[in-house]
Amino acid sequence: MVDFKHFDTVDFNKDEDALRIIDQTKLPNKLEMLELDDEESIWDAIHYLKVRGAPAIGVAAAIGIAVLSKKIKEDDLIKFKEEFNRIKKYLESSRPTAVNLFWALDRMGRITENFEGQKDDLIKLLVDEAIKIREEDIEVCRKIGEYGLKLLKENYGVLTHCNAGSLATVKYGTATAPMYLAKEKGMDIRVYADETRPLLQGARLTAYELNAAGIDTTLICDNMSQTVMRNGWVDIVFVGCDRVALNGDACNKIGTSMVALAAKRNKIPFYVCAPTSTIDFSIESGDDIVIEKRKDEEITDMWYKEKMAPEGIKVYNPAFDLTDADLITGIITEYGIIYPPYKEALMKIKEEHNL
Amino acid sequence: MVDFKHFDTVDFNKDEDALRIIDQTKLPNKLEMLELDDEESIWDAIHYLKVRGAPAIGVAAAIGIAVLSKKIKEDDLIKFKEEFNRIKKYLESSRPTAVNLFWALDRMGRITENFEGQKDDLIKLLVDEAIKIREEDIEVCRKIGEYGLKLLKENYGVLTHCNAGSLATVKYGTATAPMYLAKEKGMDIRVYADETRPLLQGARLTAYELNAAGIDTTLICDNMSQTVMRNGWVDIVFVGCDRVALNGDACNKIGTSMVALAAKRNKIPFYVCAPTSTIDFSIESGDDIVIEKRKDEEITDMWYKEKMAPEGIKVYNPAFDLTDADLITGIITEYGIIYPPYKEALMKIKEEHNL
Repeated sequence: MVDFKHFDTVDFNKDEDALRIIDQTKLPNKLEMLELDDEESIWDAIHYLKVRGAPAIGVAAAIGIAVLSKKIKEDDLIKFKEEFNRIKKYLESSRPTAVNLFWALDRMGRITENFEGQKDDLIKLLVDEAIKIREEDIEVCRKIGEYGLKLLKENYGVLTHCNAGSLATVKYGTATAPMYLAKEKGMDIRVYADETRPLLQGARLTAYELNAAGIDTTLICDNMSQTVMRNGWVDIVFVGCDRVALNGDACNKIGTSMVALAAKRNKIPFYVCAPTSTIDFSIESGDDIVIEKRKDEEITDMWYKEKMAPEGIKVYNPAFDLTDADLITGIITEYGIIYPPYKEALMKIKEEHNL
Repeated sequence: MVDFKHFDTVDFNKDEDALRIIDQTKLPNKLEMLELDDEESIWDAIHYLKVRGAPAIGVAAAIGIAVLSKKIKEDDLIKFKEEFNRIKKYLESSRPTAVNLFWALDRMGRITENFEGQKDDLIKLLVDEAIKIREEDIEVCRKIGEYGLKLLKENYGVLTHCNAGSLATVKYGTATAPMYLAKEKGMDIRVYADETRPLLQGARLTAYELNAAGIDTTLICDNMSQTVMRNGWVDIVFVGCDRVALNGDACNKIGTSMVALAAKRNKIPFYVCAPTSTIDFSIESGDDIVIEKRKDEEITDMWYKEKMAPEGIKVYNPAFDLTDADLITGIITEYGIIYPPYKEALMKIKEEHNL
């Protein structure tokens, strides 16, 4: 079995002629690395969630199109650019709702569009840009980890929900970054991982990656976090997020808001780990966010040996929920931790960093 | 398929020579009635959870031992009593932690112990006592339903957790009793049923029985109740309970306390439906209750096609949790609804009804 600790979630292979990823559909039962160097297999990897998590998808697309550019046979720059654009469009179709997929491919596209000169120089620029996108992701996560680490103490109990982990990024993750940095420093912490129904990302991915990294991890059902907190076992909560509104409301995996309520009840600090790329400066409050509803089968059938709900039952399956800003102790970004009032703090970050 | 509406969970068969139950291990995929008239199959039914839920187990044991008494061949009363006691002891071993099992068998045992006269007259008394135990259960649930019904209005949204349903009792259930009585009255309500990890009693049983009774039921994951409430869809919460302490703290299926937190947050009344048999006058607060921990496999493996958590991961799997009294709007008993301060109200009920 591959030793997880030595591998990043998404990378070039050694010769920079293939995209190398962990096949997340095989977890937690098998750790398998894939090296992909043709457009169909890269498209498949994104489409079939072999690579998932917004940042990881963006990096995979950037490395993917860099690798595929190397294989374009056309020497004529105009024809090369045509072929590049065809591949770009094809990869975009692999997961049409993934914002980071488009963001990363557009960034690669601008390099190509603005380029004049020899094909080989363009390819070098594309590889460099993909490396840069990858390194930026690592850097953002590492920064969030460093700020989060300041909140941890020896033997702290940490609770997290879903997978805002290393497997959703290149490495470190967002909510898990403080935990990995604590481990690097030799600090002992205990992590409680919510299994995260219905898709079980907490059980399959978070429990897997933290355990593989040698961090003391306990798996619980989502409905147990209040009990674990009431038992006095949790000192701090870190969760990821998909979108933050200007007032500080955070949209994250379904169930996050109930963890926040339990944390409030037990006077435990609740931190949202949010790269500034997830801050949506165009929305005032979380109520402006439309929550994606997913298929009934995820709750009634998906993982089971047989159907676990009555035939024809109505199901409500929202993918995300809103954690109201008043339940959030602070938001950890790559530029520091911000505290209420969030709108002021967020606008200040926007100004200072030209976001 | 049998029409669920026409069957009680536990009963005598028509000729009063067998115990008739719904085989709950087959739900929600198949509704199968079992008629059991030998000691091994009655023991199996209790042991293998074909009949489950504290009140239902008690009634099944009472009917079971009445049916088995009919088959005792000894005419000599002393020998009959010996055989009765052997069967009683055997049935007690079917689920040694089920308080209601012992309570019901002891009640049947006292009839036998105190009897002098003809065997046939004793058998008649035993059948009558089993019928009485069964009818008392129906009556207690119906009373809870009547008090709960007063809290409901047309088109109310009701949320419940786990199965304190008809399937856990003879009929009506406790938390579901107000819903069934609303249905009987032709009142339209909408019910949200938490699936209730890890054993999925909400998905397999509550969603099943309410749906079968024609009540508008929506299945959700446990981590969605806050969202459903925040959406404005829930007007009241009814849950069952396993044990109530003198201060009003309620011990119920794991996750109940998180529903209570969400209800409080959304200013939704939260009622615990508790037959007085679940009130433990000997404990001052919920903190005196020791919570049963169950097997890891229930979370990592049990229902799944393949293991859904990493090999060797630590798991915490408490069966119940505590809902602090300050989160409970009221407790619905068969003698009425009580409100804080709970200790005073509970002591008053104890006195008035000689509990």
